[in-house]
Amino acid sequence: MNRFLSLKTTVLIFFISLAAVAQDHPNLILTQSGVEQIRENLGKVPFFDAYLAEVKAEVDAEMKTGIDVPTPKDMAGGYTHVRHKKNFLILQKAGVLYQILEDDAYADYVKDVLMEYARIYKSLPIHPQPRSYARGKLFWQCLNDANWLVYVSQAYDCIYNSLSRKERKHLENELFRPFADYISVENPQYFNRIHNHSTWGNAAVGMMGLVMDDEELIQRALYGLKQDGISENAKDNDGGFIKDKEGKAGFLANIEAPFSPEGYYTEAPYYQRYAMYPYLLFAVGLNNVRPEEKIFEYKNGVLLKAVNTLLNLTDSDGEFYPLNDAQKGMSYFSRELVSAVDIAYHYGDQNPGLLSIARKQGKLTLDDAGFSVAKAIADGKSEPFTKQSMELTDGPNGEQGGITILRSGSQENKLNLVAKYTAHGNSHGHYDKLSYLLYNKGEEVLQDYGLARFVNIDQKNGGGYLKENTSWAKQTIAHNTLVVNETSHFNGKYAIGSKFHSDKYFSSLSSEGSQIISAKENNAYPGVKMHRTLVMIEDDRFDNPLVLDVFKVHSENKNQYDLPHHYFGQIISSSFPLEAQSTLAPLGSAHGYQHLWLQSKGKNGAEVNQLSWFTGSAFRTLTMLNTVADEFLFTQLGANDPEFNLRSDSSFILRRKNTDSTLFVNAIEVHGSYSPVTEIALNSTSSIKGISKVMDTDDYTVVKIELTTGSPIEVFLSNQNSSNNKEHTLTVNGNLTKWTGPFLIK
Amino acid sequence: MNRFLSLKTTVLIFFISLAAVAQDHPNLILTQSGVEQIRENLGKVPFFDAYLAEVKAEVDAEMKTGIDVPTPKDMAGGYTHVRHKKNFLILQKAGVLYQILEDDAYADYVKDVLMEYARIYKSLPIHPQPRSYARGKLFWQCLNDANWLVYVSQAYDCIYNSLSRKERKHLENELFRPFADYISVENPQYFNRIHNHSTWGNAAVGMMGLVMDDEELIQRALYGLKQDGISENAKDNDGGFIKDKEGKAGFLANIEAPFSPEGYYTEAPYYQRYAMYPYLLFAVGLNNVRPEEKIFEYKNGVLLKAVNTLLNLTDSDGEFYPLNDAQKGMSYFSRELVSAVDIAYHYGDQNPGLLSIARKQGKLTLDDAGFSVAKAIADGKSEPFTKQSMELTDGPNGEQGGITILRSGSQENKLNLVAKYTAHGNSHGHYDKLSYLLYNKGEEVLQDYGLARFVNIDQKNGGGYLKENTSWAKQTIAHNTLVVNETSHFNGKYAIGSKFHSDKYFSSLSSEGSQIISAKENNAYPGVKMHRTLVMIEDDRFDNPLVLDVFKVHSENKNQYDLPHHYFGQIISSSFPLEAQSTLAPLGSAHGYQHLWLQSKGKNGAEVNQLSWFTGSAFRTLTMLNTVADEFLFTQLGANDPEFNLRSDSSFILRRKNTDSTLFVNAIEVHGSYSPVTEIALNSTSSIKGISKVMDTDDYTVVKIELTTGSPIEVFLSNQNSSNNKEHTLTVNGNLTKWTGPFLIK
Repeated sequence: MNRFLSLKTTVLIFFISLAAVAQDHPNLILTQSGVEQIRENLGKVPFFDAYLAEVKAEVDAEMKTGIDVPTPKDMAGGYTHVRHKKNFLILQKAGVLYQILEDDAYADYVKDVLMEYARIYKSLPIHPQPRSYARGKLFWQCLNDANWLVYVSQAYDCIYNSLSRKERKHLENELFRPFADYISVENPQYFNRIHNHSTWGNAAVGMMGLVMDDEELIQRALYGLKQDGISENAKDNDGGFIKDKEGKAGFLANIEAPFSPEGYYTEAPYYQRYAMYPYLLFAVGLNNVRPEEKIFEYKNGVLLKAVNTLLNLTDSDGEFYPLNDAQKGMSYFSRELVSAVDIAYHYGDQNPGLLSIARKQGKLTLDDAGFSVAKAIADGKSEPFTKQSMELTDGPNGEQGGITILRSGSQENKLNLVAKYTAHGNSHGHYDKLSYLLYNKGEEVLQDYGLARFVNIDQKNGGGYLKENTSWAKQTIAHNTLVVNETSHFNGKYAIGSKFHSDKYFSSLSSEGSQIISAKENNAYPGVKMHRTLVMIEDDRFDNPLVLDVFKVHSENKNQYDLPHHYFGQIISSSFPLEAQSTLAPLGSAHGYQHLWLQSKGKNGAEVNQLSWFTGSAFRTLTMLNTVADEFLFTQLGANDPEFNLRSDSSFILRRKNTDSTLFVNAIEVHGSYSPVTEIALNSTSSIKGISKVMDTDDYTVVKIELTTGSPIEVFLSNQNSSNNKEHTLTVNGNLTKWTGPFLIK
Repeated sequence: MNRFLSLKTTVLIFFISLAAVAQDHPNLILTQSGVEQIRENLGKVPFFDAYLAEVKAEVDAEMKTGIDVPTPKDMAGGYTHVRHKKNFLILQKAGVLYQILEDDAYADYVKDVLMEYARIYKSLPIHPQPRSYARGKLFWQCLNDANWLVYVSQAYDCIYNSLSRKERKHLENELFRPFADYISVENPQYFNRIHNHSTWGNAAVGMMGLVMDDEELIQRALYGLKQDGISENAKDNDGGFIKDKEGKAGFLANIEAPFSPEGYYTEAPYYQRYAMYPYLLFAVGLNNVRPEEKIFEYKNGVLLKAVNTLLNLTDSDGEFYPLNDAQKGMSYFSRELVSAVDIAYHYGDQNPGLLSIARKQGKLTLDDAGFSVAKAIADGKSEPFTKQSMELTDGPNGEQGGITILRSGSQENKLNLVAKYTAHGNSHGHYDKLSYLLYNKGEEVLQDYGLARFVNIDQKNGGGYLKENTSWAKQTIAHNTLVVNETSHFNGKYAIGSKFHSDKYFSSLSSEGSQIISAKENNAYPGVKMHRTLVMIEDDRFDNPLVLDVFKVHSENKNQYDLPHHYFGQIISSSFPLEAQSTLAPLGSAHGYQHLWLQSKGKNGAEVNQLSWFTGSAFRTLTMLNTVADEFLFTQLGANDPEFNLRSDSSFILRRKNTDSTLFVNAIEVHGSYSPVTEIALNSTSSIKGISKVMDTDDYTVVKIELTTGSPIEVFLSNQNSSNNKEHTLTVNGNLTKWTGPFLIK
């Protein structure tokens, strides 16, 4: 009887534990209560139903074409790369379809594909393409292998209960555990860093650890490898140091270091977008499986703050400002942001502005978060997402400079000025201290080139970074900031640049009236101090706020200064004569100058000059305060670019030679309109008659802008004291002016 | 009693004639019955009501700013030009508002403005800007003065009845009659031509003649000036001859000569669009006031046919193909096409397809025609406007070559190939015999540069034609056609070029399956015969139909041949090595070559070569059959362009030197897709493995295209007999092929 009872007990325990297992999954991203709610509401929440149908159609079509797990061989953009990427995206979707629709066909499909991977995985050699500092097995780099595991861990969670214990054991032993080991213990130089690459690795290992309930993998993911044996001088393909200065690693450290308190990610938005997916998905998994970790409260809730920050780092079209390495066109319509918006809504504070972004995206995550969003939209809770002027510090404690975005008027239609005075941004950083970007209605007025790469276009270096990314895109001259002696900031050296950051001097942001951001950089060039103040002046006499750029340079030595404006459009008028070159030669030999054809020159001798250009639909005018010796250079990108890797963009460079301390004052008007259909040109000329330097000392700079109508605008800047309480009294040309705080616009 | 009666009779007659006058107006464009119907339906026809409200708001706002009739002084784009243009547009609208809304304020406004013009007109000198061969008084050229009168005649008609006889007499004597005389008898070189300029002049004089019931003006408009004293060698600003070869002039002659039987206007769509307004408005006036003229039946109803033709000469976005002088972006959304569509619907055969265009336009004419359209839309009669492949002859009797548009699949999403084998196109013609343009979904794949001009942008030569229009845009090398010995067709001489036209050899158009157009040109170069066949091959193995270009050249002498491809995008791969130039020099010294920087060269020695480029969202691949000595030149526009008047577009030139008769075979694939949001590249590589010349004799050309999958495509062309009934039997490489008609694709 005892033995019988004992047997009964054992059987009972067996069944209880089976039941426990049965209850446990899905529990990572899609939860059991979530999926129940979704099933109950099928047919009742239009957005969710519509997107579910879309995903179902996509997965059904893919399942019909059959399973294909090719032997890995190609670079990004090549067949095997694209196919394995497609596989993990479809597996994740098939998993949720199985849960939501309770159709075994989806579970069978996921199982069959995973079994095929399990069959080959262990015997796969390292990927044959030798380009990466951390080669994967399915893909040319571990990073993409980690992508695979992040998605596949979700698929496994969804079909977990449908598999036999034996099947699970087989998959875990033959595929998941060796896979997780490969991208961590076998590639510590990949796994044990403070870098977006490692965040993917950490999340991949951690998410699979949560599904497998493998404590060791979870700890490895959260805290990194105890020992990694990485040399302090080791560098990755982008030239970034691998070893963290303080030896930190793991998921939590990767939250700690790169995010500022406001959730600005030091690599800038393009990579923040990329990294948000593993950050948020592993966080959701931890939140669901290990609520005691309180991951969404970690570092004052920075992960969810980061979503709001990222959405604010977009232009009127939702495209990310292309700071540092960034492919233009990436936007909040990307799949990573669909997840981010849904998660931030559901696990955050249900900001109704996120719902309007979700509606624009037209996509959802098919899980608890996505359902929340769809339901809230159906309940009429959506409100516009309002983007206003915003300041974001950089650095783990917000002490390494930052980004200021000045926005005029309503978010969708007006100017955006993005001032950058950050830290370097890890290996994806560019040498562009105190640079700025200017947008109008989603159009670039003054551009940042972005990266030199065709992501996933196989013909272009296998879709990877091109050498022109280093020789051009990262160089200072590729940005709207000052280049001294044709040399990039920090001499273009990462080891130096990554030690420094610029500093905000002061700023004033408001939803109405003029706005200002002032920052200083004292390390980019030995012996040269740079102080740039960008003002967005509201005045009814302009179509849009006037952008005033006061760039003060202090140097004991004589230098050559180049201040580029990377514009778009065609030159339509200049106040100075143009000397077109009869043959074109590169403007210089290094630091990006070797890529610029010198098209035309100008020189005038006048103290104020204007240049206007035309985009086809609108006009822009640059008014400059010059010295009589200033030279004007018109360049076009494309020299020393035998493979046509660069766009042939145009730039205008203001050159001041043989000068020590000096002041640049430039005003940009974004004005007028033109339609090729009506052929009517409105307000096609400048409203500025002149600019003058009323005073410029160590302590004060005063600039006067004369307009074609009405009284002039005067801008007073305090250069040494940025206190908001400080009272200033200044007599200029016999006129006494008193004000409080670091600036006055009158 | 007799005398009393006589007085009574006189008074009676006076009142009868007053009444008659009262009944007579408006009768030109808006008619009395039309305006009654409109008034009765106010508030009942949503589209009409909405657009009426829009126009009312515009006119009300303008009336509030007050009257401004400045002394003329500026070129196009300058203040006085823009202001007088705005005045005539607003006057026409205020006139119809007076009629429709019966609010005297509009009539008073029109009267006040006209009185101001009447006060100054006679004393105005000729416009101070001396640029035009026919200077106006309000504007720099008579053409714009005629624009003014075409619009103002409508405004006058609308307020005619509200004016006293004395007021009318004053306006007619001080303004309208002298105005009409100035642009006709005082400027015969402007008025008495076969040219769009004169059409405006004819219509202006004729429309005012109809309103004033001035028979002399009407006859002058319809038949031109009997004597004009114009020299046979006189030329206009564009280099066109002024005197018609047969001495024809007047409105009817201007319908007769430039329109082909299908309604293709020899100057091409951009100017057809511009001229359609006076053509149609004067025609509507004649139809309403002089129905006995049967103007809409004139030349087999060509005026209304021309509207359909013009709508078909647009890409998927409704933009006109930029043949000859044409500013890109002009489209069927222009105000001229709003009128044209409404008039063609109301006075034509009520084609329901026009209603869908009107809906897209979102605008109407506020008159009988516009009301008809709005009412029909409200009645649910709208149908899609279907654009299919189409052939349009050129020349008054359709005997001067033509245009063939090959369209694949549904109109909005697929390829458009526009083959040009027309006459010269008057003074706006370009030297581009046998050229072609290629579009995909409204994007230019192979472009025609269009014109070199910034219409109404004052900073660019007062908005007029730039000298680069002659030195670049008109030259042969600016087009996708063959240049022999770096010399434009007809040596770039209008006097020669305007005597000749190309000839269609054969064509086959269909809504399904492959399509073909073949044409010959024997006069562009002495001793050189050119024969180009363009095929759009439907085959499921391509994303889009394959474009095959077979260009056969016959010459007894050895020449240099340049075949340019004016592409958009960035080069991503080539089968031949690229030799980038370390400094850039112009490719040549004349005929447009002086504007091309030679960027890079290639040479291979292989008989088949490929070049792929990328637009950011899609891929294109050119596969060429080469001789081993062929050279590949990559150029960028912008040399010898000191004022930045040209866009910096890229071109690829296939150069074959020291060759007599020869055959060029090129295939263009429009393939694949890319999204910067998903970063996924689909179908980014060519589906072509090779191209070979199987046979090429005077009688036959046979080309074989080998694909990466499946069997090859063979194209058989009969070069000397284009009869559809002719049976051909050909043995090539031992294989016998039989077919009927000028071509076979198998």
